[in-house]
Amino acid sequence: MAIRVGLVGTGTVGGGCIDIILKHADDFKRHYGIDIELARVCSLDSREAEAHGVGHLFTDNFRDIIDDPAIDLVIELIGGTTFARTVVIDALNAGKNVVTANKALMATYGQEVMETAERNGREIAFEASVGGGIPIIGPLKHSLIANEITSVMGIVNGTTNYMLTRMDEDGMDYDAVLAEAQAKGFAEANPSADVDGYDAAAKIAILASIAFNSRVTIDDVYTRGITNITPIDLEAARDMGYVVKLLAIAHRTDRGIDVRVHPTMIPAEHQMAKVNGVFNAIYVTGDFVGETMFFGEGAGAGAAASAVMGDVLEVARHMQQGIAPIVGCTCTDELPILPIEELSMKYYIRFSVADRPGVLAAMAGVFAKRGVSVHSVVQRGQKSGGTVEIVYVTHTAEERAIREVIEEIRSLDDVLHGDPSLIRVEE
Amino acid sequence: MAIRVGLVGTGTVGGGCIDIILKHADDFKRHYGIDIELARVCSLDSREAEAHGVGHLFTDNFRDIIDDPAIDLVIELIGGTTFARTVVIDALNAGKNVVTANKALMATYGQEVMETAERNGREIAFEASVGGGIPIIGPLKHSLIANEITSVMGIVNGTTNYMLTRMDEDGMDYDAVLAEAQAKGFAEANPSADVDGYDAAAKIAILASIAFNSRVTIDDVYTRGITNITPIDLEAARDMGYVVKLLAIAHRTDRGIDVRVHPTMIPAEHQMAKVNGVFNAIYVTGDFVGETMFFGEGAGAGAAASAVMGDVLEVARHMQQGIAPIVGCTCTDELPILPIEELSMKYYIRFSVADRPGVLAAMAGVFAKRGVSVHSVVQRGQKSGGTVEIVYVTHTAEERAIREVIEEIRSLDDVLHGDPSLIRVEE
Repeated sequence: MAIRVGLVGTGTVGGGCIDIILKHADDFKRHYGIDIELARVCSLDSREAEAHGVGHLFTDNFRDIIDDPAIDLVIELIGGTTFARTVVIDALNAGKNVVTANKALMATYGQEVMETAERNGREIAFEASVGGGIPIIGPLKHSLIANEITSVMGIVNGTTNYMLTRMDEDGMDYDAVLAEAQAKGFAEANPSADVDGYDAAAKIAILASIAFNSRVTIDDVYTRGITNITPIDLEAARDMGYVVKLLAIAHRTDRGIDVRVHPTMIPAEHQMAKVNGVFNAIYVTGDFVGETMFFGEGAGAGAAASAVMGDVLEVARHMQQGIAPIVGCTCTDELPILPIEELSMKYYIRFSVADRPGVLAAMAGVFAKRGVSVHSVVQRGQKSGGTVEIVYVTHTAEERAIREVIEEIRSLDDVLHGDPSLIRVEE
Repeated sequence: MAIRVGLVGTGTVGGGCIDIILKHADDFKRHYGIDIELARVCSLDSREAEAHGVGHLFTDNFRDIIDDPAIDLVIELIGGTTFARTVVIDALNAGKNVVTANKALMATYGQEVMETAERNGREIAFEASVGGGIPIIGPLKHSLIANEITSVMGIVNGTTNYMLTRMDEDGMDYDAVLAEAQAKGFAEANPSADVDGYDAAAKIAILASIAFNSRVTIDDVYTRGITNITPIDLEAARDMGYVVKLLAIAHRTDRGIDVRVHPTMIPAEHQMAKVNGVFNAIYVTGDFVGETMFFGEGAGAGAAASAVMGDVLEVARHMQQGIAPIVGCTCTDELPILPIEELSMKYYIRFSVADRPGVLAAMAGVFAKRGVSVHSVVQRGQKSGGTVEIVYVTHTAEERAIREVIEEIRSLDDVLHGDPSLIRVEE
């Protein structure tokens, strides 16, 4: 029995999926007895389907896939949470299994999608939604389940990791490196989802939900991007033995789930510090397995298509063997999400301030007043246009107090030029 | 329906499995609906079972487990290929599913074990046989199957990686670092399986079989250990921008499978070069996924027990849902194994030779005669007792020619003191 697949979305990843099926369908039969047939492809424009040699399967109406009783499995690769949500929900309700790479959908409407799948006795698989081609959802749902997972930390956005790597290695400033990333196709024309951290936030919400058996949505994730980071920060970090990464962090604590995305200093000798360029890595700690890391290409046609098609083959394998979904929703606990204000850690804060007498004393007074103990304060870089860069590193302090410090320094007679650069330290 | 588990072997890993069940059995029920009951434990001595709080389940006769119709699943953790083979085969023939961490068994009698499982309609799972707690067999059998895997390379022996790391970082010589590893419990009293590469050979045989869909046994693996490596070699490697690792390598080539274990120079910037101490890492390259790496603790009670219990829970999940084995043997091709003599690569060779006039000229003559082009030759380290260390690095050469060179230099009027140190270069 061939499993008939309908593909919705023929962009980069969809094209990769078509290529895999055309190249390896015979291998799948021979090695695994899995018989996959690409039955229909849908997008707004037929040219991509034609370019991949499947123009004859093209439709521009996704209902031709949802309403076709001969189609067993739908791959959703259009992204976003509006149209894609309709495709996924309607496909499940039409009795089809669904594979998606849609992180925003799963991090926002994951519960609705999972419940719809369960109600219909169908599978929803989404390995490609996190970490491109890196197997991480599979290991978390299978190989690692004997553990209580205590933390998941990831470099899960290749665009920002590429940008930070370039800034660090070549001293380029933010605007130049963004322009370069856009020219190379690593960053979108509107880069907000990447540089503001929302892409990473969706991914850590998905990982935290699975790892901690408790629903985390994108709105639960405290999220800050890299737009205030400059080469000065990366150089200062290096001098202190750290590397700056846009880290997606989820810790299980006694009081609930600590989940956030922000620029983070990690020790230079940590395995994650060595993950550079567009590569992704996810670091998982469990009470028995200890520390593990999953590394690979986080984006690109081939890598993401590998993950999508891995899911397709697994679901097809189950269908051919007449197996009902093996693992459904595992969010059996309801752990609270910790407000970031209540967390305590070390902070790196760089202020651009007017080079005027008394400014340093006034700032020191604010730290003292709020009870934030300062580990070091140094002036870095060249004075420029009457502005100097003052870098503070604190001892462990409460986030709430740090915010009060920043707020009060902002109000100090117009000493602050622009937003401070705030980098949290993860030991 | 509780799945009743019989555990054979209560050493380090077995103890870890008991600890996981005692700590997490309720979590497994709540999160996954998997009901695990430890029904019986077997070893030669009851003290370990008692130390882990399950003395009441002890037997010293494994037949009490195999012959007990109420036991559904057997965990084999005694190791080796004699008694363990009987336990595994008999358990499968008695209609039980089996989980094992036994790399030697799977790399030697894998086909017999797989066929016995298939004949009985039972599962055999062995994630813990490679890479300790690192999920690697699961990803290769599931998430990555949309790829043609082109290579698998691993640092899969923590003992030798610890020893090489110590030699590199602290300049300790082989004997001192082996003694230290033994004192710390990282190396056995008889260290041969680790330092001579056999442990790594079994692991790469297992990984290559799965990755290439073609049976590879331990006897197919060309295997050399680290006993001739000295700090001089590690220092020379560093000066050239390389790091020395005991690498287990499997490449798919047009002519067949290239599979081997030996000390290997890899570029210092490669992700694997940064895997130090007792950690393991497996680097997998596929035609669509590109490069991925799986990193973690390769040994220790908790890590290996995490992998064993991950398998146990997966098999239990299948049993409770009435599912037959999902993935059996996938060795559907019969690819030839390439003899190492036919491979070509770059070589690092260090000879300890008598400090006599004409020796260098004679050696140079041998390289020239055999058509091996030399990239560099330098004398390293201090002259000691009339012996000097001469380090050659070749351009790409055929293994067969390199062996002839070494053989002939050995015969040069007694110039050679001891075995040369031969390190292959993997770019």
